[in-house]
Amino acid sequence: MRFISFEKNGRSMLGVREGEHVRVIGEVSLEALLTQGVDLTAYARAHAGDERLAIDGLKLLPPLSRPSKIICVGLNFADHTSESNYQQPDYPTLFFRVATSLVAHGQPIVRPAVEDCDGVDYEGEIAVVIGRGGRHIRLEDALSHVVGYSLFNDGSIREYQFKTPQWTVGKNFDATGAFGPDLVTADELPPGVEGLRLETRLNGQVVQSASTDEMVFNVASLISIISEAITLEPGDVIVSGTPSGIGWARQPKLLMKAGDVCEVSVEKIGTLRNVIADEVVL
Amino acid sequence: MRFISFEKNGRSMLGVREGEHVRVIGEVSLEALLTQGVDLTAYARAHAGDERLAIDGLKLLPPLSRPSKIICVGLNFADHTSESNYQQPDYPTLFFRVATSLVAHGQPIVRPAVEDCDGVDYEGEIAVVIGRGGRHIRLEDALSHVVGYSLFNDGSIREYQFKTPQWTVGKNFDATGAFGPDLVTADELPPGVEGLRLETRLNGQVVQSASTDEMVFNVASLISIISEAITLEPGDVIVSGTPSGIGWARQPKLLMKAGDVCEVSVEKIGTLRNVIADEVVL
Repeated sequence: MRFISFEKNGRSMLGVREGEHVRVIGEVSLEALLTQGVDLTAYARAHAGDERLAIDGLKLLPPLSRPSKIICVGLNFADHTSESNYQQPDYPTLFFRVATSLVAHGQPIVRPAVEDCDGVDYEGEIAVVIGRGGRHIRLEDALSHVVGYSLFNDGSIREYQFKTPQWTVGKNFDATGAFGPDLVTADELPPGVEGLRLETRLNGQVVQSASTDEMVFNVASLISIISEAITLEPGDVIVSGTPSGIGWARQPKLLMKAGDVCEVSVEKIGTLRNVIADEVVL
Repeated sequence: MRFISFEKNGRSMLGVREGEHVRVIGEVSLEALLTQGVDLTAYARAHAGDERLAIDGLKLLPPLSRPSKIICVGLNFADHTSESNYQQPDYPTLFFRVATSLVAHGQPIVRPAVEDCDGVDYEGEIAVVIGRGGRHIRLEDALSHVVGYSLFNDGSIREYQFKTPQWTVGKNFDATGAFGPDLVTADELPPGVEGLRLETRLNGQVVQSASTDEMVFNVASLISIISEAITLEPGDVIVSGTPSGIGWARQPKLLMKAGDVCEVSVEKIGTLRNVIADEVVL
């Protein structure tokens, strides 16, 4: 099943995708349902009504607007680690995003109005949404904690990412982390989303292409290793890392400017599409 | 005014400190009040009842258990940057904590049951709580966005902090970030908490001592600079950095073990006290 969060008359709504339409469930959020331990598929079957809206005219929201955590994984494809001039660590490289950095499918990724920013870099990734929490989750149990998957564009302001030893600020400008469009439940996808092709396109040109099999730490490993340290909670999101091809590693650099269109596609999950816009400071 | 969050019969309560007692306001959280834009002092005056409880017997909670963001500042005292073998960046070094890493005053800081951890390192700091949000906040307006201050012990698992280029995991083990005891409203303290002595004691021995005047980026600068990138929201917490004296930089290293007692004191704010305990994995 595919869940879509959207805004209608200023209210945050949830629905189920039916092709290019969404069948409306109601004014409820995925994070609330997951926190309450609700089975999403059963809930949708019980609560989806007759109202069907064309997705084309809707203002989508990220599948979860305020996830309890957004845990991003850096350096999780060896060729990206190499292009970034890092040694491959033998442990996942983690950093967090905060909710203010999120932006929905179809909404603009914003290039901030700061002096030191030539553009926004793209990073196509898969987002893993935790359905059932836990600590010290065993590798063999890890995938049973996943409720579904979505797409992410981990838009990065590289000039700020490298101002200090920590990448955090360059990864957390408002409206730089695109997330969506659907939450696809895990039963619709191969276990751990293995063997899927991930592709990022900038203005129609392929700039990243890799198989999810190339991840250094696969989805189950990430869940198991992260939960050695951190209690995972329902609604937590793990953004699983980007392959090579980022704009900052190119000669000349390829950064996204206002009007550019960036798409992240993964087989069987879908396509996340965003235009780039300059921040307007009032 | 000094606010205390505590647990009573399984419910999360808020009260106002009166010496060694707390006058009960009710079952409400500071994050909820701040998100609603409530004036805390006026609310307390209107809602504090006659019930007074001895703090000594209470199970305290962090002032905010689920802050919208916990933004930590690294390398914010030059002598600590130096002992950590970093060059001093000319921009704040930011990383995030998540709520699962928090622990209240009086509760144990937990040394995790992982192979590679000799102990928990201490970092005494001041926590700044945002009352009014904003983006692109001007330096001269910054302190008006602060509702109050508290104390923080940014307990660190150094072996994990340095496994990869990003410190995040070493800063986010469950129950390693002590936060409390009181939220002291800004009107009770010098503007930007300048000129206060910060001291960390391990088993009664002073291990860190500095003036808040030594911060590389003071509170107003932090708010202004962070908000160039990230929208600050009511209830966000900025943990403003630790001075030199950390255990990892000593010869031999001084890491906290089960039974140790760590206190962080700042003049006029108070003392945050925690024992260390080993994690028990069931």
